Amino acid sequence: MGVVIPLEDKAGDKGIDALVALVASDMERVNQTVLSRTGSDVQMIPEVANHLITSGGKRLRPMLTLAAAQMFGYAGEGHIKLAASVEFMHTATLLHDDVVDESDLRRGKLAARLLWGNEASVLVGDFLLGQAFKMMVEVGSMTCLAILSDAAAVIAEGEVMQLAATQNTATTEDEYLAVIRAKTAALFAAAAEVGPTLVGRSRDECAAFRSYGANLGVAFQLVDDALDYGGSKADLGKNVGDDFREGKITLPVVLSYRRGTDEDRAFWQRTLQSEEFIEADLDHAMELIKRHRAIEDTIERARHYGAIARDALAPFPESAQKRALLDVVDFCIRRVN
Amino acid sequence: MGVVIPLEDKAGDKGIDALVALVASDMERVNQTVLSRTGSDVQMIPEVANHLITSGGKRLRPMLTLAAAQMFGYAGEGHIKLAASVEFMHTATLLHDDVVDESDLRRGKLAARLLWGNEASVLVGDFLLGQAFKMMVEVGSMTCLAILSDAAAVIAEGEVMQLAATQNTATTEDEYLAVIRAKTAALFAAAAEVGPTLVGRSRDECAAFRSYGANLGVAFQLVDDALDYGGSKADLGKNVGDDFREGKITLPVVLSYRRGTDEDRAFWQRTLQSEEFIEADLDHAMELIKRHRAIEDTIERARHYGAIARDALAPFPESAQKRALLDVVDFCIRRVN
Repeated sequence: MGVVIPLEDKAGDKGIDALVALVASDMERVNQTVLSRTGSDVQMIPEVANHLITSGGKRLRPMLTLAAAQMFGYAGEGHIKLAASVEFMHTATLLHDDVVDESDLRRGKLAARLLWGNEASVLVGDFLLGQAFKMMVEVGSMTCLAILSDAAAVIAEGEVMQLAATQNTATTEDEYLAVIRAKTAALFAAAAEVGPTLVGRSRDECAAFRSYGANLGVAFQLVDDALDYGGSKADLGKNVGDDFREGKITLPVVLSYRRGTDEDRAFWQRTLQSEEFIEADLDHAMELIKRHRAIEDTIERARHYGAIARDALAPFPESAQKRALLDVVDFCIRRVN
Repeated sequence: MGVVIPLEDKAGDKGIDALVALVASDMERVNQTVLSRTGSDVQMIPEVANHLITSGGKRLRPMLTLAAAQMFGYAGEGHIKLAASVEFMHTATLLHDDVVDESDLRRGKLAARLLWGNEASVLVGDFLLGQAFKMMVEVGSMTCLAILSDAAAVIAEGEVMQLAATQNTATTEDEYLAVIRAKTAALFAAAAEVGPTLVGRSRDECAAFRSYGANLGVAFQLVDDALDYGGSKADLGKNVGDDFREGKITLPVVLSYRRGTDEDRAFWQRTLQSEEFIEADLDHAMELIKRHRAIEDTIERARHYGAIARDALAPFPESAQKRALLDVVDFCIRRVN
């Protein structure tokens, strides 16, 4: 079921390793902060939170914050708490998402909602969001607070947008993009932007990091959506075809729907809009997606946004941090192979 | 089913009318802010949010913020957005609560989750929380931000605490109090405290308002829990006995359980812990509650916290605002009749 993606020029593609190495000591402190901030006398809170937090996510978003602050020689402590806030906002979203999507797996483990119930997932998500804001307040940068609280509202808006678009197979590519810009890219953008903001860099420099993060986030989500139709369970930490089963309209479907015959469109409507499908329908969906080169072109779109992300950082002088942040763009796109 | 509560000295008990009149013009602006801040291109957001927001809640919490700011002659605009933030935090909690409790009614209307689904309730709640923080950031008081973000984390902690305590009939009164201090009183306390805080009043004055709000909140919740076993559907905007059906351990149950016979305790365990009950069990529960004077004593406890709330404000010079805030305490307790 894997899809072979033609490789780009491999020069400089070192994946995520350079970034991980650069921020390793800061990340250690972020992890300690994350663990100590899930502490509560209410036993269920650390249990639920840590089930997800210790499940081996890459922590890509907080790494962006750390690397960006480091790139500008930030010498304070604030980036640790801001990075932890970003991770908490992300974790809260995942907990709420799993309830909304009725997902069974997350990062290859049973979703928290199956172990502790939907109630706990909703409420522990709320707790993490509250803790995230507490940490931001402790850092004391009103501009960073504005960036992250704005992101929180936009993310939720994007999730509702996605809910409203669910099962509408006539969703346009632009509508789909509006959803992922809000639900995914907004947090990447905020995570990157708070780095230079904390250091008090110029408006243009902060805007460049915002643009880098936003476009990286779009590319990341596009690849994620491609993987849902092209990865194996072990790679994904979730089941292939989950988006299909949930009637989620992602770009591979948008492209296949628009490029297909009337008969194809009837198939997508039956399976995604009415949720009347049998497991064999997934095979047919994969076949249509393959026929219309929808995975390849989803990745092609991801490359487009990846290129914008890279150009956003182009004006900055060479540095290990800049190199690592550029590598991340390639890493995100090359996850499909 | 109504329980007759002996009336206290009625001197000065004008209910909530004085407060409503005092803050009327500010409240009009809060309402406009609330409506404009639920606006979104995503149609479902204003629909879900306004279903609840326009359903005739008393807006007690934002009124506390407005009256407190007014009492100290606050001349700025910040109290409007802070009051709206408080109302959004409250509304977000209600939306999430209804999902957690699987409630059917809220303020006499069908719960949002039944009309738009649990998903929308979770996500629109998240959106309102995000908007609340955006407004706080716009006001620009880091101290107010600290107070309200702290409350957000404590509220969620209280909700999880309640979830963990649900169906444990051996819950002590102290454990029950810890839950309601967190899930209800924390927002009352924050709503009252941000008033003097915004005006830059002394630590002691801010602490007095915090204490007023916290104890008023405890009294309010105690009466609410009493009403669940003693009010009619129309008064409550929810069904009598909802807490019983959900296996929620509130003070009327805690008292009846502890004061009862072994046989009574077996009854509470069967009905609340194992959720094996028939509708006739509610009648028996009401009978046990009556036998042990559990409603009267719950109200008696509420009076105790009400008295603390009143004394918290005692040192302040007489003013229309102070009078109105004291009347609210009586109003909250006298809702049971």
